[in-house]
Amino acid sequence: MLDVRLIGTGGMTPLPRRFLASAIVRYKGVSVLIDCGEGTQISLKMPGEPALPLRSRTGEASHCVNNLKMLGWGFKEISTILITHLHADHIAGLPGMLLNIGNSGRREPLLLYGPEELWRVVEGVRAIAPHLPYQLEWRELSSGDQVDLEGMDVSCLSVEHSLPCLAYCLHVPRSRRFNPERASELGIPVALWGRLQSGETVELDGVRISPEAVLGPERRGIKLCYATDTRPTSGLPDFVREADLLICEGMYGSPEDLPKAEGNGHMLFSEAAEIARAGEVRELWLTHYSPSLSDPEEWLPEATRIFPNTRAGYDRMTGSLSFREE
Amino acid sequence: MLDVRLIGTGGMTPLPRRFLASAIVRYKGVSVLIDCGEGTQISLKMPGEPALPLRSRTGEASHCVNNLKMLGWGFKEISTILITHLHADHIAGLPGMLLNIGNSGRREPLLLYGPEELWRVVEGVRAIAPHLPYQLEWRELSSGDQVDLEGMDVSCLSVEHSLPCLAYCLHVPRSRRFNPERASELGIPVALWGRLQSGETVELDGVRISPEAVLGPERRGIKLCYATDTRPTSGLPDFVREADLLICEGMYGSPEDLPKAEGNGHMLFSEAAEIARAGEVRELWLTHYSPSLSDPEEWLPEATRIFPNTRAGYDRMTGSLSFREE
Repeated sequence: MLDVRLIGTGGMTPLPRRFLASAIVRYKGVSVLIDCGEGTQISLKMPGEPALPLRSRTGEASHCVNNLKMLGWGFKEISTILITHLHADHIAGLPGMLLNIGNSGRREPLLLYGPEELWRVVEGVRAIAPHLPYQLEWRELSSGDQVDLEGMDVSCLSVEHSLPCLAYCLHVPRSRRFNPERASELGIPVALWGRLQSGETVELDGVRISPEAVLGPERRGIKLCYATDTRPTSGLPDFVREADLLICEGMYGSPEDLPKAEGNGHMLFSEAAEIARAGEVRELWLTHYSPSLSDPEEWLPEATRIFPNTRAGYDRMTGSLSFREE
Repeated sequence: MLDVRLIGTGGMTPLPRRFLASAIVRYKGVSVLIDCGEGTQISLKMPGEPALPLRSRTGEASHCVNNLKMLGWGFKEISTILITHLHADHIAGLPGMLLNIGNSGRREPLLLYGPEELWRVVEGVRAIAPHLPYQLEWRELSSGDQVDLEGMDVSCLSVEHSLPCLAYCLHVPRSRRFNPERASELGIPVALWGRLQSGETVELDGVRISPEAVLGPERRGIKLCYATDTRPTSGLPDFVREADLLICEGMYGSPEDLPKAEGNGHMLFSEAAEIARAGEVRELWLTHYSPSLSDPEEWLPEATRIFPNTRAGYDRMTGSLSFREE
C-alpha cells in the first residue's frame, strides 16, 4: 500500500491555512517528498485534524482521509526529494527541511532530484544550511529519465512552464502471481518456488525451468503522478495514463482566468480534468491553487463535469493506494 | 509611538503553534524585521487572534496586546532586515520573505544587515530567489557599528554564541522641548522658531541665537533591544541600559538545563532576567524557547523572582512603546 498526503495546496505564496504545494508519498517505510516550498516542514508537523468531511461531489470515498495513520510519518524516513522546478515557492523550504531531517536522526544519504540548474539551488541551500549530518546527493534529471528508488521507480516528463519543469510518475511494480498448482504439476520442490517467484530460472535434474512456466501474466502496479506547474501539454495524457491517482495543478477555477493561466504557465480546473480524462486515470486531486481562489470547492464542477472523480485537494488531505484486485 | 510584535518565539525548529523567533518593529510607517527563519512570512500573515489574556504574573498591562492595530502591517513597508546570526533558524525564511515583499509592491531598496559572512547568505538567497523587483542592499556589521534608519538609529553588540552573533538596539531619539515663552522674551519672530526647534542656529539683527537658548534639556527617546542567541555577556547590561523593552532569549526555563545552555550558547530565563535587572530596563519579554519547553509560563517565576516585569513572549504578542512623560 502506498500512502500519499498533500502537505500544502497553495501556489505562489503560503496562506495561513493553505501552505505551499507539496506532497509526500510513503511506501514500505520510505518517504519521497515532492517539492519543498517555505513552510513545508511546518505543515508536515501539523497535528492531524479530525478527518474532514470529503465535500467531493462524486460521493466516492475510496481513498478516505485517515490522519491517525499518518501521525507516524517522520522526517528521518525521507530518503528522496523530487523538485518539479526551481521557483522559490517550490524550493525555499529546502534548507529548513534538510536540517530538520538531520535533526531527526537521518545519517543515510538523501537524494535530491530536479531539473537542469539544480546545482544552483544546491549551492544556495548549502550557504544557508552548511552542516548536514548526512550526505546530500543530487542529480539533474531530463525528460524521460528514470530513477529506481527502493521498491518504487520514478519517471519524469518535461512540461510547459516559465522555466524548465518536470512532472513525475511514481510506480510501484507488482510481481506476477505464482501458480502453485502448476509448480506441483511440474514436480518442482517447494524449496525452489521462492527463486522462481522472484523471476529466477532454476535447474531441476538437469532441466532448466523458467519462471514463465509458473508465473501468471504481468500485473498492474500502483501509479501515482504529480504535475505542477504547467500548461496542459500533448505528452501529459500518455505520461499519466491509467494512473491510480493524478495530483495536478489547478491554479484557477473560473474559465475567465484562462488568459492568466496561459500567460503564466498554469491550468484551469477544467484543463486538469481534460488531462485526467484523456489519460484515463482513476482519480484526480487538484492542488496548487492561486491565492485569489478562496474556495476551490466552488469551482469543482468545472472539473467534475469533465472528469467526475475529481477532488479539490486541501492541506493534509491523505489517501492510500493499493494494488487493484484483478 | 513605536510598535513591536513578536512574529515567532521558537528556537531551532518551528512548531505548529510556535514559529521561529523573529520580531518586527514599526515606527512612522517604516518596518524593521529582526531575523527571518522559515515561516516568518507565514506567521506574519496569520490573522490576529482576539487579544489573549496576558498571563504575566506581574499584573502590569502597560503594553497591551492589540491585534486589530496590527492588521495593517504590510510587507511592502519592510525597509530593513536585521539578522542576528547566520544559523538557518534565523535566516532560512529570507528568500520567501524577500519575494513576498516584492509581490507586495515594494520597489524602493531594502537593506539587509547582519554579522560577518552575511555575503554567503546573500548569495544563497539569490540562488533561490534570483529575481527581486527592488534593490537588495546589504552590509556586514561589527560590534559597535551604528546605522541610521529613517527616524531610528540601530546599534549592535557582539554577543556570545557558537558563531558570530549580534544583539541590536533600536533607538528613537526625542527632540528637546521648545520653550515659546523664552523665545518671546528674546524677541525671536515666530517664523524662526521652527529652525531653532530643529537645532539650527539663527541670526536676528546681526546677533546669532543658538538653539540652546530656547530648547529644554535632552529628553529620553524610545529604546528597544533584542538579544538572541547568546550566553549572558559582560557587555549586555550596558548595551541594553534603561531600555523600554528588552526582548531576550530564554532558551530554557529549568535551572537544570544550565549545562545545555552553556554548551550551546543559550540562556536560562533567570539569566535573561539578570541582564534585565543589571541593565535597569523597563520590561523584559522572553523569546526563542527550546522546542522541549512546552509551556514557558510554567518557568516564568524563574525570571520574575529576579526581574518582576518579565513576560513570557508568545507568537504575535504585540506592544507599543511611547515617549515617557518627563
